[in-house]
Amino acid sequence: MKRFAIEFAYDGTKFFGYQGQPNVRTVQGDLEDALERIFKERIYTQAAGRTDAGVHANGQVAAFNCPIERLTEKDIKNALNANLPDDIYVKKAWIVDKNFNPRFAATKRIYHYFISTSEKDVFMRNYVWNFRYDLDVEAMRKAASFLEGEHDFSSFKKGKDEKNPVRTIYRIRILTLKKGLILIRVEGRSFLRSMVRNIVGSLVRVGLGQWKPEKILEVLEKRSRQEAAGTAPPHGLYLYKVLF
Amino acid sequence: MKRFAIEFAYDGTKFFGYQGQPNVRTVQGDLEDALERIFKERIYTQAAGRTDAGVHANGQVAAFNCPIERLTEKDIKNALNANLPDDIYVKKAWIVDKNFNPRFAATKRIYHYFISTSEKDVFMRNYVWNFRYDLDVEAMRKAASFLEGEHDFSSFKKGKDEKNPVRTIYRIRILTLKKGLILIRVEGRSFLRSMVRNIVGSLVRVGLGQWKPEKILEVLEKRSRQEAAGTAPPHGLYLYKVLF
Repeated sequence: MKRFAIEFAYDGTKFFGYQGQPNVRTVQGDLEDALERIFKERIYTQAAGRTDAGVHANGQVAAFNCPIERLTEKDIKNALNANLPDDIYVKKAWIVDKNFNPRFAATKRIYHYFISTSEKDVFMRNYVWNFRYDLDVEAMRKAASFLEGEHDFSSFKKGKDEKNPVRTIYRIRILTLKKGLILIRVEGRSFLRSMVRNIVGSLVRVGLGQWKPEKILEVLEKRSRQEAAGTAPPHGLYLYKVLF
Repeated sequence: MKRFAIEFAYDGTKFFGYQGQPNVRTVQGDLEDALERIFKERIYTQAAGRTDAGVHANGQVAAFNCPIERLTEKDIKNALNANLPDDIYVKKAWIVDKNFNPRFAATKRIYHYFISTSEKDVFMRNYVWNFRYDLDVEAMRKAASFLEGEHDFSSFKKGKDEKNPVRTIYRIRILTLKKGLILIRVEGRSFLRSMVRNIVGSLVRVGLGQWKPEKILEVLEKRSRQEAAGTAPPHGLYLYKVLF
Protein backbone atom coordinates (compact mmCIF):
# COMPACT_ATOMS: atom_id res chain seq x y z
CA MET A 1 0.00 0.00 0.00
CA LYS A 2 1.27 3.47 -0.92
CA ARG A 3 1.86 5.96 1.89
CA PHE A 4 1.82 9.71 1.29
CA ALA A 5 3.09 12.71 3.20
CA ILE A 6 1.58 16.13 2.60
CA GLU A 7 2.82 19.61 3.48
CA PHE A 8 -0.06 21.97 4.12
CA ALA A 9 -0.92 25.45 5.38
CA TYR A 10 -3.89 26.47 7.47
CA ASP A 11 -5.35 29.59 8.97
CA GLY A 12 -5.91 28.52 12.58
CA THR A 13 -8.45 31.27 13.35
CA LYS A 14 -11.56 29.13 13.05
CA PHE A 15 -10.19 25.83 14.38
CA PHE A 16 -10.16 24.45 17.91
CA GLY A 17 -6.59 23.41 17.31
CA TYR A 18 -4.98 20.71 15.18
CA GLN A 19 -5.84 17.53 17.05
CA GLY A 20 -9.13 15.80 16.23
CA GLN A 21 -11.78 15.85 18.95
CA PRO A 22 -15.54 15.38 18.89
CA ASN A 23 -18.06 18.20 18.33
CA VAL A 24 -15.58 20.95 17.44
CA ARG A 25 -13.87 21.93 14.21
CA THR A 26 -10.24 20.77 14.10
CA VAL A 27 -7.66 20.68 11.31
CA GLN A 28 -7.14 16.92 11.69
CA GLY A 29 -10.90 16.39 11.61
CA ASP A 30 -11.32 18.41 8.42
CA LEU A 31 -8.35 16.66 6.80
CA GLU A 32 -9.71 13.21 7.64
CA ASP A 33 -13.20 14.26 6.48
CA ALA A 34 -11.70 15.30 3.12
CA LEU A 35 -9.86 11.95 2.84
CA GLU A 36 -13.11 10.15 3.66
CA ARG A 37 -14.91 12.00 0.86
CA ILE A 38 -12.15 10.99 -1.55
CA PHE A 39 -11.70 7.34 -0.50
CA LYS A 40 -15.17 6.53 0.90
CA GLU A 41 -13.54 5.19 4.05
CA ARG A 42 -12.01 6.70 7.19
CA ILE A 43 -8.25 7.25 6.78
CA TYR A 44 -6.14 7.80 9.88
CA THR A 45 -3.48 10.52 9.66
CA GLN A 46 -0.34 11.27 11.67
CA ALA A 47 1.01 14.82 11.89
CA ALA A 48 4.33 16.42 12.81
CA GLY A 49 2.93 18.84 15.38
CA ARG A 50 -0.24 19.57 17.30
CA THR A 51 -0.95 23.27 17.13
CA ASP A 52 -3.28 24.90 19.67
CA ALA A 53 -6.53 26.75 18.85
CA GLY A 54 -5.80 29.90 16.84
CA VAL A 55 -2.23 28.85 15.93
CA HIS A 56 -1.49 28.81 12.18
CA ALA A 57 0.71 26.68 9.94
CA ASN A 58 2.63 27.44 6.78
CA GLY A 59 4.11 23.96 6.58
CA GLN A 60 2.45 21.34 8.77
CA VAL A 61 3.20 17.78 7.62
CA ALA A 62 0.91 14.75 7.88
CA ALA A 63 1.12 11.20 6.52
CA PHE A 64 -1.49 8.53 5.68
CA ASN A 65 -1.91 5.26 3.79
CA CYS A 66 -3.61 5.55 0.41
CA PRO A 67 -6.07 2.76 -0.41
CA ILE A 68 -5.99 3.46 -4.17
CA GLU A 69 -2.69 2.30 -5.65
CA ARG A 70 -2.72 4.22 -8.95
CA LEU A 71 -2.93 7.73 -7.43
CA THR A 72 0.07 10.00 -8.01
CA GLU A 73 1.47 12.77 -5.83
CA LYS A 74 -0.28 15.32 -8.01
CA ASP A 75 -3.60 13.44 -7.76
CA ILE A 76 -3.39 13.50 -3.96
CA LYS A 77 -2.66 17.22 -3.84
CA ASN A 78 -5.47 18.07 -6.25
CA ALA A 79 -8.05 15.74 -4.71
CA LEU A 80 -7.36 17.09 -1.22
CA ASN A 81 -7.49 20.75 -2.28
CA ALA A 82 -10.81 20.08 -4.04
CA ASN A 83 -12.23 18.56 -0.84
CA LEU A 84 -10.73 20.74 1.90
CA PRO A 85 -12.31 23.96 3.24
CA ASP A 86 -10.78 27.24 2.04
CA ASP A 87 -8.68 27.78 5.18
CA ILE A 88 -6.57 24.65 4.59
CA TYR A 89 -4.36 24.28 1.51
CA VAL A 90 -2.07 21.39 0.53
CA LYS A 91 1.17 22.69 -0.98
CA LYS A 92 2.68 19.34 -1.95
CA ALA A 93 2.35 15.59 -1.58
CA TRP A 94 5.05 12.95 -1.84
CA ILE A 95 5.44 9.21 -1.39
CA VAL A 96 7.04 8.06 1.87
CA ASP A 97 8.18 4.85 3.44
CA LYS A 98 5.54 2.51 4.91
CA ASN A 99 6.69 3.35 8.44
CA PHE A 100 7.09 7.11 8.04
CA ASN A 101 5.59 8.97 11.01
CA PRO A 102 6.18 12.73 10.72
CA ARG A 103 5.98 13.16 14.48
CA PHE A 104 9.04 10.99 15.12
CA ALA A 105 10.83 11.45 11.80
CA ALA A 106 11.08 15.25 12.13
CA THR A 107 14.64 16.42 12.72
CA LYS A 108 13.79 20.11 12.94
CA ARG A 109 10.67 22.21 13.53
CA ILE A 110 10.69 25.92 12.82
CA TYR A 111 8.11 28.20 14.46
CA HIS A 112 7.52 31.84 13.58
CA TYR A 113 5.96 34.35 15.97
CA PHE A 114 4.95 37.82 14.72
CA ILE A 115 4.61 40.84 17.01
CA SER A 116 3.40 44.20 15.72
CA THR A 117 4.23 47.30 17.73
CA SER A 118 2.37 49.57 15.27
CA GLU A 119 -1.18 50.88 15.47
CA LYS A 120 -3.82 48.19 14.95
CA ASP A 121 -4.24 46.87 11.41
CA VAL A 122 -7.68 45.23 11.05
CA PHE A 123 -6.42 42.97 8.27
CA MET A 124 -3.71 41.50 10.52
CA ARG A 125 -5.80 41.13 13.69
CA ASN A 126 -5.80 37.31 13.51
CA TYR A 127 -2.25 36.99 12.18
CA VAL A 128 0.10 39.01 14.41
CA TRP A 129 0.14 39.90 18.10
CA ASN A 130 -0.62 43.60 18.12
CA PHE A 131 1.39 44.71 21.10
CA ARG A 132 1.44 48.51 20.85
CA TYR A 133 4.53 49.11 23.00
CA ASP A 134 8.05 49.54 21.72
CA LEU A 135 10.31 46.58 22.31
CA ASP A 136 14.09 46.56 22.78
CA VAL A 137 15.02 43.94 20.19
CA GLU A 138 18.69 43.90 21.19
CA ALA A 139 17.80 43.02 24.79
CA MET A 140 15.39 40.32 23.56
CA ARG A 141 18.17 38.81 21.40
CA LYS A 142 20.47 38.63 24.39
CA ALA A 143 17.75 37.01 26.53
CA ALA A 144 16.95 34.52 23.75
CA SER A 145 20.60 33.42 23.57
CA PHE A 146 20.29 31.95 27.09
CA LEU A 147 17.56 29.59 25.82
CA GLU A 148 19.56 28.13 22.95
CA GLY A 149 20.99 24.63 23.52
CA GLU A 150 19.74 21.75 25.65
CA HIS A 151 17.83 22.73 28.79
CA ASP A 152 15.11 21.61 31.16
CA PHE A 153 12.25 23.85 29.91
CA SER A 154 9.86 23.18 32.85
CA SER A 155 9.49 26.95 33.34
CA PHE A 156 8.12 27.28 29.79
CA LYS A 157 5.78 24.31 29.52
CA LYS A 158 2.03 23.99 29.90
CA GLY A 159 0.55 21.57 32.41
CA LYS A 160 2.12 18.34 33.53
CA ASP A 161 1.48 16.05 30.56
CA GLU A 162 5.05 15.72 29.36
CA LYS A 163 7.34 13.50 31.36
CA ASN A 164 10.66 14.71 30.03
CA PRO A 165 10.94 18.51 30.05
CA VAL A 166 14.39 18.53 28.42
CA ARG A 167 14.47 19.95 24.90
CA THR A 168 17.10 21.42 22.59
CA ILE A 169 16.61 24.79 20.89
CA TYR A 170 18.98 25.00 17.95
CA ARG A 171 18.53 28.68 17.39
CA ILE A 172 16.34 31.72 18.14
CA ARG A 173 16.54 34.63 15.70
CA ILE A 174 14.72 37.91 16.26
CA LEU A 175 14.30 40.08 13.17
CA THR A 176 12.77 43.49 12.59
CA LEU A 177 11.03 42.88 9.25
CA LYS A 178 9.93 46.49 8.90
CA LYS A 179 9.28 49.33 11.32
CA GLY A 180 6.92 47.96 13.96
CA LEU A 181 6.95 44.30 12.84
CA ILE A 182 9.09 41.77 14.71
CA LEU A 183 9.58 38.12 13.79
CA ILE A 184 10.81 35.63 16.40
CA ARG A 185 12.03 32.45 14.70
CA VAL A 186 12.58 29.42 16.94
CA GLU A 187 14.21 26.24 15.68
CA GLY A 188 14.39 22.94 17.55
CA ARG A 189 13.81 19.23 17.09
CA SER A 190 10.71 19.15 19.26
CA PHE A 191 8.93 21.41 21.73
CA LEU A 192 6.86 21.10 24.88
CA ARG A 193 3.24 22.22 24.77
CA SER A 194 2.91 26.05 24.58
CA MET A 195 6.70 26.31 24.89
CA VAL A 196 7.19 28.79 22.05
CA ARG A 197 4.35 31.04 23.24
CA ASN A 198 5.67 30.91 26.80
CA ILE A 199 9.15 31.87 25.60
CA VAL A 200 7.70 34.76 23.58
CA GLY A 201 5.74 35.97 26.61
CA SER A 202 8.94 36.13 28.67
CA LEU A 203 11.04 37.69 25.87
CA VAL A 204 8.46 40.48 25.63
CA ARG A 205 9.00 41.26 29.33
CA VAL A 206 12.66 41.77 28.50
CA GLY A 207 11.79 43.83 25.41
CA LEU A 208 9.68 46.14 27.58
CA GLY A 209 12.59 46.62 29.99
CA GLN A 210 10.64 45.02 32.88
CA TRP A 211 13.18 42.21 33.04
CA LYS A 212 16.90 42.26 32.38
CA PRO A 213 18.01 39.68 29.78
CA GLU A 214 19.74 37.64 32.51
CA LYS A 215 16.39 37.13 34.25
CA ILE A 216 15.56 34.57 31.52
CA LEU A 217 18.47 32.43 32.65
CA GLU A 218 17.25 32.65 36.24
CA VAL A 219 13.69 31.66 35.19
CA LEU A 220 15.05 28.71 33.21
CA GLU A 221 17.10 27.47 36.13
CA LYS A 222 14.17 27.57 38.55
CA ARG A 223 12.34 24.93 36.47
CA SER A 224 8.94 26.19 37.53
CA ARG A 225 6.15 27.55 35.31
CA GLN A 226 5.32 30.20 37.94
CA GLU A 227 8.65 31.91 37.30
CA ALA A 228 8.07 32.76 33.64
CA ALA A 229 5.75 35.43 32.22
CA GLY A 230 2.28 34.85 30.75
CA THR A 231 1.70 32.95 27.52
CA ALA A 232 1.73 35.02 24.31
CA PRO A 233 -1.58 34.77 22.37
CA PRO A 234 -1.95 31.97 19.80
CA HIS A 235 -2.72 34.09 16.73
CA GLY A 236 0.87 35.35 16.32
CA LEU A 237 2.27 31.80 16.06
CA TYR A 238 2.93 29.73 12.93
CA LEU A 239 4.31 26.21 12.51
CA TYR A 240 6.46 27.43 9.66
CA LYS A 241 8.38 24.38 8.48
CA VAL A 242 9.15 20.79 9.46
CA LEU A 243 12.37 19.17 8.28
CA PHE A 244 13.16 15.45 8.08
CA MET B 1 -23.23 71.22 18.08
CA LYS B 2 -19.83 69.75 17.20
CA ARG B 3 -19.60 67.62 14.07
CA PHE B 4 -16.86 65.00 13.64
CA ALA B 5 -15.44 63.15 10.68
CA ILE B 6 -13.64 59.84 11.19
CA GLU B 7 -11.32 57.88 8.92
CA PHE B 8 -11.62 54.15 9.53
CA ALA B 9 -10.57 50.76 8.21
CA TYR B 10 -12.63 47.60 8.09
CA ASP B 11 -12.24 44.03 7.01
CA GLY B 12 -15.32 43.54 4.82
CA THR B 13 -15.28 39.73 5.04
CA LYS B 14 -18.02 39.38 7.63
CA PHE B 15 -20.22 42.33 6.61
CA PHE B 16 -23.16 42.46 4.22
CA GLY B 17 -21.69 45.64 2.83
CA TYR B 18 -21.38 49.16 4.20
CA GLN B 19 -24.92 50.46 4.05
CA GLY B 20 -27.20 49.84 7.04
CA GLN B 21 -30.07 47.42 6.49
CA PRO B 22 -32.23 45.39 8.86
CA ASN B 23 -31.36 41.87 10.07
CA VAL B 24 -27.84 41.66 8.62
CA ARG B 25 -24.46 42.87 9.86
CA THR B 26 -23.32 46.05 8.11
CA VAL B 27 -20.46 48.46 8.78
CA GLN B 28 -22.82 51.42 9.10
CA GLY B 29 -25.01 49.44 11.50
CA ASP B 30 -22.04 48.50 13.71
CA LEU B 31 -20.73 52.07 13.64
CA GLU B 32 -24.11 53.51 14.66
CA ASP B 33 -24.51 50.81 17.34
CA ALA B 34 -21.12 51.86 18.78
CA LEU B 35 -22.17 55.53 18.74
CA GLU B 36 -25.42 54.58 20.47
CA ARG B 37 -23.49 52.77 23.21
CA ILE B 38 -21.35 55.89 23.71
CA PHE B 39 -24.08 58.56 23.53
CA LYS B 40 -27.17 56.59 24.70
CA GLU B 41 -29.05 57.82 21.62
CA ARG B 42 -29.14 56.89 17.94
CA ILE B 43 -26.68 58.99 15.92
CA TYR B 44 -27.09 59.16 12.15
CA THR B 45 -23.89 58.94 10.09
CA GLN B 46 -23.03 59.88 6.51
CA ALA B 47 -20.21 58.11 4.66
CA ALA B 48 -18.06 58.82 1.62
CA GLY B 49 -18.74 55.55 -0.15
CA ARG B 50 -20.97 52.50 0.07
CA THR B 51 -18.87 49.39 -0.28
CA ASP B 52 -20.47 46.07 -1.28
CA ALA B 53 -20.43 42.87 0.79
CA GLY B 54 -16.87 41.53 1.11
CA VAL B 55 -15.23 44.80 0.01
CA HIS B 56 -12.69 46.25 2.46
CA ALA B 57 -11.64 49.76 3.43
CA ASN B 58 -8.34 51.22 4.55
CA GLY B 59 -9.71 54.76 4.68
CA GLN B 60 -13.50 55.05 4.63
CA VAL B 61 -14.73 58.42 5.95
CA ALA B 62 -17.96 59.10 7.84
CA ALA B 63 -19.34 62.16 9.65
CA PHE B 64 -21.85 62.65 12.47
CA ASN B 65 -23.04 65.22 14.99
CA CYS B 66 -21.73 64.80 18.52
CA PRO B 67 -24.26 65.47 21.30
CA ILE B 68 -21.55 65.97 23.97
CA GLU B 69 -19.79 69.27 23.44
CA ARG B 70 -16.65 68.67 25.51
CA LEU B 71 -15.40 65.60 23.61
CA THR B 72 -12.11 65.99 21.75
CA GLU B 73 -10.92 64.32 18.55
CA LYS B 74 -8.89 61.91 20.63
CA ASP B 75 -11.88 61.11 22.87
CA ILE B 76 -13.96 60.24 19.80
CA LYS B 77 -11.28 57.97 18.37
CA ASN B 78 -10.74 56.16 21.68
CA ALA B 79 -14.43 55.83 22.57
CA LEU B 80 -15.25 54.40 19.14
CA ASN B 81 -12.37 51.92 19.14
CA ALA B 82 -13.41 50.75 22.60
CA ASN B 83 -16.96 50.15 21.36
CA LEU B 84 -16.43 48.83 17.81
CA PRO B 85 -15.95 45.13 16.93
CA ASP B 86 -12.41 44.02 16.14
CA ASP B 87 -12.84 44.17 12.34
CA ILE B 88 -13.44 47.95 12.34
CA TYR B 89 -10.77 50.40 13.51
CA VAL B 90 -10.90 54.20 13.63
CA LYS B 91 -7.57 55.70 12.56
CA LYS B 92 -8.39 59.34 13.24
CA ALA B 93 -11.17 61.78 14.06
CA TRP B 94 -11.34 65.49 13.32
CA ILE B 95 -13.81 68.35 13.69
CA VAL B 96 -15.64 69.36 10.51
CA ASP B 97 -18.07 72.05 9.42
CA LYS B 98 -21.73 71.71 10.43
CA ASN B 99 -22.70 70.94 6.82
CA PHE B 100 -19.86 68.56 5.97
CA ASN B 101 -21.16 65.50 4.12
CA PRO B 102 -18.29 63.22 3.06
CA ARG B 103 -20.31 61.82 0.17
CA PHE B 104 -20.56 65.18 -1.57
CA ALA B 105 -17.43 66.83 -0.19
CA ALA B 106 -15.08 64.14 -1.52
CA THR B 107 -12.89 65.40 -4.37
CA LYS B 108 -11.08 62.12 -4.95
CA ARG B 109 -11.65 58.48 -4.09
CA ILE B 110 -8.84 55.96 -4.48
CA TYR B 111 -9.63 52.26 -4.79
CA HIS B 112 -7.07 49.44 -4.66
CA TYR B 113 -7.66 46.03 -6.21
CA PHE B 114 -5.22 43.17 -5.51
CA ILE B 115 -4.79 40.18 -7.83
CA SER B 116 -2.50 37.27 -6.96
CA THR B 117 -1.29 35.04 -9.77
CA SER B 118 0.67 32.81 -7.36
CA GLU B 119 -0.39 29.56 -5.77
CA LYS B 120 -3.12 29.95 -3.14
CA ASP B 121 -2.10 31.53 0.18
CA VAL B 122 -4.66 30.61 2.88
CA PHE B 123 -3.84 33.76 4.86
CA MET B 124 -4.75 36.00 1.89
CA ARG B 125 -7.88 34.16 0.76
CA ASN B 126 -10.20 36.98 1.85
CA TYR B 127 -7.84 39.80 0.89
CA VAL B 128 -6.69 39.27 -2.73
CA TRP B 129 -8.28 37.75 -5.83
CA ASN B 130 -6.29 34.54 -6.30
CA PHE B 131 -6.34 34.27 -10.05
CA ARG B 132 -3.75 31.60 -10.83
CA TYR B 133 -3.10 32.59 -14.48
CA ASP B 134 -0.31 34.83 -15.67
CA LEU B 135 -1.42 38.30 -16.70
CA ASP B 136 0.17 40.60 -19.27
CA VAL B 137 0.48 43.74 -17.18
CA GLU B 138 1.71 45.88 -20.09
CA ALA B 139 -1.42 45.05 -22.13
CA MET B 140 -3.61 45.78 -19.08
CA ARG B 141 -1.93 49.19 -18.68
CA LYS B 142 -2.65 50.04 -22.29
CA ALA B 143 -6.29 48.95 -21.93
CA ALA B 144 -6.65 50.95 -18.71
CA SER B 145 -5.43 54.12 -20.42
CA PHE B 146 -8.60 54.11 -22.58
CA LEU B 147 -10.69 54.41 -19.42
CA GLU B 148 -8.97 57.47 -18.02
CA GLY B 149 -10.82 60.76 -18.44
CA GLU B 150 -14.55 61.55 -18.64
CA HIS B 151 -16.71 58.80 -20.18
CA ASP B 152 -20.18 57.28 -20.13
CA PHE B 153 -19.43 54.16 -18.05
CA SER B 154 -22.76 52.38 -18.72
CA SER B 155 -20.84 49.28 -19.83
CA PHE B 156 -19.22 49.07 -16.38
CA LYS B 157 -22.12 49.80 -14.06
CA LYS B 158 -24.42 47.54 -12.06
CA GLY B 159 -28.18 47.71 -12.52
CA LYS B 160 -30.13 50.78 -13.53
CA ASP B 161 -30.17 52.80 -10.30
CA GLU B 162 -27.90 55.62 -11.37
CA LYS B 163 -29.35 58.19 -13.73
CA ASN B 164 -26.14 59.77 -14.93
CA PRO B 165 -23.58 57.17 -16.04
CA VAL B 166 -20.89 59.78 -16.82
CA ARG B 167 -17.88 59.67 -14.52
CA THR B 168 -14.28 60.86 -14.64
CA ILE B 169 -11.37 58.54 -13.89
CA TYR B 170 -8.32 60.63 -13.08
CA ARG B 171 -5.86 57.79 -13.30
CA ILE B 172 -5.45 54.01 -13.32
CA ARG B 173 -2.06 52.62 -12.28
CA ILE B 174 -1.20 48.94 -12.47
CA LEU B 175 1.79 47.86 -10.39
CA THR B 176 3.55 44.54 -9.89
CA LEU B 177 4.27 44.72 -6.14
CA LYS B 178 6.22 41.48 -6.13
CA LYS B 179 6.29 38.37 -8.32
CA GLY B 180 2.68 37.21 -8.61
CA LEU B 181 1.03 40.19 -6.86
CA ILE B 182 -0.62 42.93 -8.93
CA LEU B 183 -2.17 46.14 -7.60
CA ILE B 184 -4.69 48.07 -9.71
CA ARG B 185 -5.11 51.59 -8.32
CA VAL B 186 -8.08 53.57 -9.63
CA GLU B 187 -8.57 57.27 -8.83
CA GLY B 188 -11.71 59.30 -9.56
CA ARG B 189 -14.10 61.76 -7.95
CA SER B 190 -16.96 59.28 -7.78
CA PHE B 191 -17.84 55.87 -9.18
CA LEU B 192 -20.92 53.97 -10.31
CA ARG B 193 -21.95 50.90 -8.37
CA SER B 194 -19.54 47.94 -8.99
CA MET B 195 -17.67 50.09 -11.50
CA VAL B 196 -14.17 49.32 -10.23
CA ARG B 197 -14.83 45.57 -10.04
CA ASN B 198 -16.35 45.61 -13.53
CA ILE B 199 -13.31 47.43 -14.87
CA VAL B 200 -10.99 44.91 -13.19
CA GLY B 201 -12.99 42.02 -14.70
CA SER B 202 -12.48 43.43 -18.19
CA LEU B 203 -8.82 44.33 -17.65
CA VAL B 204 -8.18 40.72 -16.64
CA ARG B 205 -9.58 39.56 -19.99
CA VAL B 206 -6.95 41.74 -21.63
CA GLY B 207 -4.26 40.47 -19.27
CA LEU B 208 -5.11 36.89 -20.27
CA GLY B 209 -4.77 37.79 -23.95
CA GLN B 210 -8.44 36.97 -24.62
CA TRP B 211 -9.08 40.61 -25.55
CA LYS B 212 -6.80 43.12 -27.26
CA PRO B 213 -6.36 46.35 -25.25
CA GLU B 214 -8.42 48.25 -27.86
CA LYS B 215 -11.42 46.04 -27.10
CA ILE B 216 -11.87 48.06 -23.87
CA LEU B 217 -12.46 51.19 -25.95
CA GLU B 218 -15.03 49.34 -28.02
CA VAL B 219 -16.81 48.06 -24.89
CA LEU B 220 -16.85 51.57 -23.43
CA GLU B 221 -18.35 53.05 -26.59
CA LYS B 222 -21.18 50.50 -26.76
CA ARG B 223 -22.54 51.76 -23.40
CA SER B 224 -24.05 48.41 -22.52
CA ARG B 225 -23.26 46.20 -19.52
CA GLN B 226 -23.53 43.09 -21.73
CA GLU B 227 -20.39 44.13 -23.61
CA ALA B 228 -18.00 44.07 -20.67
CA ALA B 229 -16.62 41.02 -18.87
CA GLY B 230 -17.85 39.59 -15.57
CA THR B 231 -17.44 41.42 -12.26
CA ALA B 232 -14.23 40.74 -10.31
CA PRO B 233 -14.91 39.30 -6.83
CA PRO B 234 -15.37 41.74 -3.92
CA HIS B 235 -12.60 40.49 -1.62
CA GLY B 236 -9.77 41.96 -3.75
CA LEU B 237 -11.19 45.50 -3.48
CA TYR B 238 -10.33 48.22 -0.93
CA LEU B 239 -11.65 51.76 -0.56
CA TYR B 240 -8.13 52.97 0.07
CA LYS B 241 -8.44 56.71 0.61
CA VAL B 242 -10.93 59.57 0.30
CA LEU B 243 -9.64 63.08 -0.29
CA PHE B 244 -11.54 66.34 0.34
